[in-house]
Amino acid sequence: MVRRNDQRRSELLDAAIEVLAQEGARGLTFRAVDKEAGVPAGTASNYFANRDQLLTQSGSRVYERLVPDEATVAAQEPIAPSSEKFHGLMTDLIGRLTSFRSGYLALLELRLESTRRPELRAVLTERVRADIAYNVAHHEQSGLPGDATSVKLLILALNWLIVEQLTLPEVFDEEERRHLVSEAVRRIVGE
Amino acid sequence: MVRRNDQRRSELLDAAIEVLAQEGARGLTFRAVDKEAGVPAGTASNYFANRDQLLTQSGSRVYERLVPDEATVAAQEPIAPSSEKFHGLMTDLIGRLTSFRSGYLALLELRLESTRRPELRAVLTERVRADIAYNVAHHEQSGLPGDATSVKLLILALNWLIVEQLTLPEVFDEEERRHLVSEAVRRIVGE
Repeated sequence: MVRRNDQRRSELLDAAIEVLAQEGARGLTFRAVDKEAGVPAGTASNYFANRDQLLTQSGSRVYERLVPDEATVAAQEPIAPSSEKFHGLMTDLIGRLTSFRSGYLALLELRLESTRRPELRAVLTERVRADIAYNVAHHEQSGLPGDATSVKLLILALNWLIVEQLTLPEVFDEEERRHLVSEAVRRIVGE
Repeated sequence: MVRRNDQRRSELLDAAIEVLAQEGARGLTFRAVDKEAGVPAGTASNYFANRDQLLTQSGSRVYERLVPDEATVAAQEPIAPSSEKFHGLMTDLIGRLTSFRSGYLALLELRLESTRRPELRAVLTERVRADIAYNVAHHEQSGLPGDATSVKLLILALNWLIVEQLTLPEVFDEEERRHLVSEAVRRIVGE
């Protein structure tokens, strides 16, 4: 009975992401997930052994949903590797992250919760490391300008820009955000 | 009776910061603050009209405690404005922020809580804007290399580096963090 309906599990995790974003990690209970998913009380507890499992799988689900689908990748402008192309990719990435607002906020909640839960911290650490390694490897194969350090510095700067946009959106207006992204790529990657 | 003991108020806010970092924004209750401060139950509710006030004043208290004292400023190496000096200032700043771990984590909790509380969001937005403006103005007067955009991009990159260090400390080891700081200054500020 371990493997039940995968579709239902994903729906419960999507509900957990909304609860995390709206209520914070402390508000993430089986009951809240059932309610958000609109399923009978007791459903989530049939799919997850405990709250730790619910937390870690919610984090994985956010990453799963952030992977661009093949159509999106195929639609990327077929321009030659250049800092212009790099800039376009970063703009797409920011768009993908900010349009999944609850997912990004849920990841921040999980990071804070992981300071209190070593098991969650281990899972998130692996995930974030894999994500950085993937981006560095992808960059190497792409022929884009810049090096591994450029990729890491852009990850740093753009993540905080997204935090700013999602939590205190009036600190920078949209024009300034665009300017900061374009200057980040220009200065960090080089021409 | 509005103005009571300022010292006691600060102690209660310091306790609130610890509660925020340890328990998250949802765990911040008057009762938890009294307990953390080791004062009789009911004390905090004499100092703060409501939970919103406690949240906003906790945020201000973190900023208050992060201001370097005059001795620290005076002790900064009296070397000429240069990217080397800039790098030293950034290293000091990161040290100040990461050594007040609970304060930085409390600010992150407050940012997330502010997505649910417009009043808190307004206070934090003002505070963060003022902080950026102060840093840009201070940079202009200092004669250090770089421009306002350099200051903002460094704020972005270093903030996320600190988030990484405080929440998932094994994503980058200390040597890599140092390398990233030095490359951030070199690339963003220019020689």
